[in-house]
Amino acid sequence: MTDVKPQGIYLDNNATTRVDPRVVEAMLPFFTEQFGNPSSIHSFGADVGKTVRWARDQVKTLLGAEHDSEIVFTSGGTESDNAAILSALKTQKARDEIITSAVEHPAVLALCEYLAKHEGYTLHVIPVDSLGRLDVNAYDKALSEKTAIVSFMWANNESGTIFPIPKLAAMAKKVGALFHTDAVQIVGKMPLNLAATEVDFLSLSGHKLHGPKGIGALYVRRGTRFRPIIRGGHQERDRRAGTENVTGIVGLGKACELAMEYMEHENTAVKALRDKLEQGILAKVSHCFVTGDPSDRLPNTCNIAFEYIEGEAILLFLNRLGIAASSGSACTSGSLEPSHVMRAMNVPFTAAHGATRFSLSRETTTEEIDAVIDAVPAIIEKLRALSPFWDKDTPKAEAFDPAYA
Amino acid sequence: MTDVKPQGIYLDNNATTRVDPRVVEAMLPFFTEQFGNPSSIHSFGADVGKTVRWARDQVKTLLGAEHDSEIVFTSGGTESDNAAILSALKTQKARDEIITSAVEHPAVLALCEYLAKHEGYTLHVIPVDSLGRLDVNAYDKALSEKTAIVSFMWANNESGTIFPIPKLAAMAKKVGALFHTDAVQIVGKMPLNLAATEVDFLSLSGHKLHGPKGIGALYVRRGTRFRPIIRGGHQERDRRAGTENVTGIVGLGKACELAMEYMEHENTAVKALRDKLEQGILAKVSHCFVTGDPSDRLPNTCNIAFEYIEGEAILLFLNRLGIAASSGSACTSGSLEPSHVMRAMNVPFTAAHGATRFSLSRETTTEEIDAVIDAVPAIIEKLRALSPFWDKDTPKAEAFDPAYA
Repeated sequence: MTDVKPQGIYLDNNATTRVDPRVVEAMLPFFTEQFGNPSSIHSFGADVGKTVRWARDQVKTLLGAEHDSEIVFTSGGTESDNAAILSALKTQKARDEIITSAVEHPAVLALCEYLAKHEGYTLHVIPVDSLGRLDVNAYDKALSEKTAIVSFMWANNESGTIFPIPKLAAMAKKVGALFHTDAVQIVGKMPLNLAATEVDFLSLSGHKLHGPKGIGALYVRRGTRFRPIIRGGHQERDRRAGTENVTGIVGLGKACELAMEYMEHENTAVKALRDKLEQGILAKVSHCFVTGDPSDRLPNTCNIAFEYIEGEAILLFLNRLGIAASSGSACTSGSLEPSHVMRAMNVPFTAAHGATRFSLSRETTTEEIDAVIDAVPAIIEKLRALSPFWDKDTPKAEAFDPAYA
Repeated sequence: MTDVKPQGIYLDNNATTRVDPRVVEAMLPFFTEQFGNPSSIHSFGADVGKTVRWARDQVKTLLGAEHDSEIVFTSGGTESDNAAILSALKTQKARDEIITSAVEHPAVLALCEYLAKHEGYTLHVIPVDSLGRLDVNAYDKALSEKTAIVSFMWANNESGTIFPIPKLAAMAKKVGALFHTDAVQIVGKMPLNLAATEVDFLSLSGHKLHGPKGIGALYVRRGTRFRPIIRGGHQERDRRAGTENVTGIVGLGKACELAMEYMEHENTAVKALRDKLEQGILAKVSHCFVTGDPSDRLPNTCNIAFEYIEGEAILLFLNRLGIAASSGSACTSGSLEPSHVMRAMNVPFTAAHGATRFSLSRETTTEEIDAVIDAVPAIIEKLRALSPFWDKDTPKAEAFDPAYA
């Protein structure tokens, strides 16, 4: 396969990543050669089963889980999130409360809000501080013997802030609640050791770690009761019916294998490029600041709030130069409201509108980062010149500086 | 891409099909070049959206549906089945009865049985006759103003028998019930004109028509109320959350386009090969008969019940010769019970155990069919020689001959 990279600078890896060509190579034979149904007893099917087992083992290893049987393949992160939360509610009829955070991805938050509005569950939405850190006291107060499920993301897709999931899971277990974490942004970026935690369910998504779209996994701790949302055949040990997405599974397996290989690179080289980008922009542009927790943040994520301008406008100007970045989640784009994550972090309205996320990957180069550092100041200047709110003498949103937060 | 076909004769196309190399070619750019998230506003994402629209139009056209917006992409047939049935129950709280048939795929039957056992719904399972034809009188009697959803497959995966779906849907509408059809086996094999029916929901699966696994679609008629089973982002017009499986969607689109091109071939050349296989085996082997409705049957499906031997043993002997066939559904394999479809058709126990399905595709060749016709008689003879039940003078299961049924 010839590897043709598209034109442009892609800094939207938290939305989706380029599939690694080695992942595609691994998948290819399973479309046209080993195409059998792994549930079939003839050789066309049986040989495929072996590769599915290999892939499951890669996922397990990347997560630091103990058993292959704890990995259930799904169609992606959103399905995994839904499956975990709905299962927890079905298996614990005596508990009717849900705890989540104000900065979750819509795959968790929209589901929980629906369950509260239409299915009679009580929902506790735990706030975060200005760095996106969870209010652990509020969480502690919300926990009770009525709590069925706690769902907190491991790392935030917008700010990159990492929650202390092992500690949060342990708190849930003390009241006998089940604990789920949406880990789609952290899996492949930071080393995890799930076996050493008390997490019951974890969601991950293939396309966030250079694997294909349409495949994900749900970790279900051994011993945790489970009720599927999709019923039918006996695939995935009766936890997810439907013919296995073999090519997707193989692709996810290969993506996990490669993620382990690149883990150190992600936390050194990618992080260094991210820091360079951040410092480069901050040095050249006034009235902007980095959002997220500086001491516990994803190594690839840089979210800068530019005051007094519209994030969507920044994105369009960047796009003209072939630079892809993002404001908020791709799953909520199109909305003109500032992101719910920035609002939850109390980022001042004038700055939340201008929050722009640059998310790097192992494919990002120094030349690309230099080009973005060169491009951004002129764009910001141009947009501010057009902004009715801008005045260079306007005081900065100092109150939001971490020193004041 | 070089097209390497695997060794062997693959006659298990109702379990899964080989992905057409042209489908893989169509998908490839979307892994590594146009890999953006279609919900993103930058060019990496926006261009992808156009191809998703093209694919949706292919699916619509193959189904003979009226509007692109009636097509919802899902992870496959099983998810589509679950989504349709569960939605119908949620949107019609005043109705609590479900009607389905005894020969449905587990994706429908296992779900309906679960709903009856654990969620308080009343389930009517309509029987079929010895040719696998629905008992329309029993269906008519079961219909009432309590019926929330009727779910009948359009064509049976084992016998190939086709149900008169347009008529059955019209009957459901008379009592105000919603109507779903699991059409995974017929889509791509027979021309459909959904717009001319009163079907509310239709499920299809990519990998049954030379498309990839892990992608499918649910047709939802315009005006039919819908509640999703997977919540989160606003993808698929709020009917199926989660980042779109772009490569899968493109593959399904291309598979649908090709299916239209091959539709006539399927109903002439493939059908002729199927008939040749059937007549060839019946001419050489005693005590066997074809199951399914001879006057309304899928053109590619041949299910022969060999009396007094085990289907699994036949499959293993065929497999040694590199011939892939099936007994029952891949989703239920591993069970030693005769298939629930054969039991529902009242195929005598001694013959139901030996039911063997040969399912052809547009890739099947005359040479392959000749080889299978040559191989089968010796296998049956060998197995019967080992069977404690076999006696060449044992009368045939005449009662099952269509003339007697």
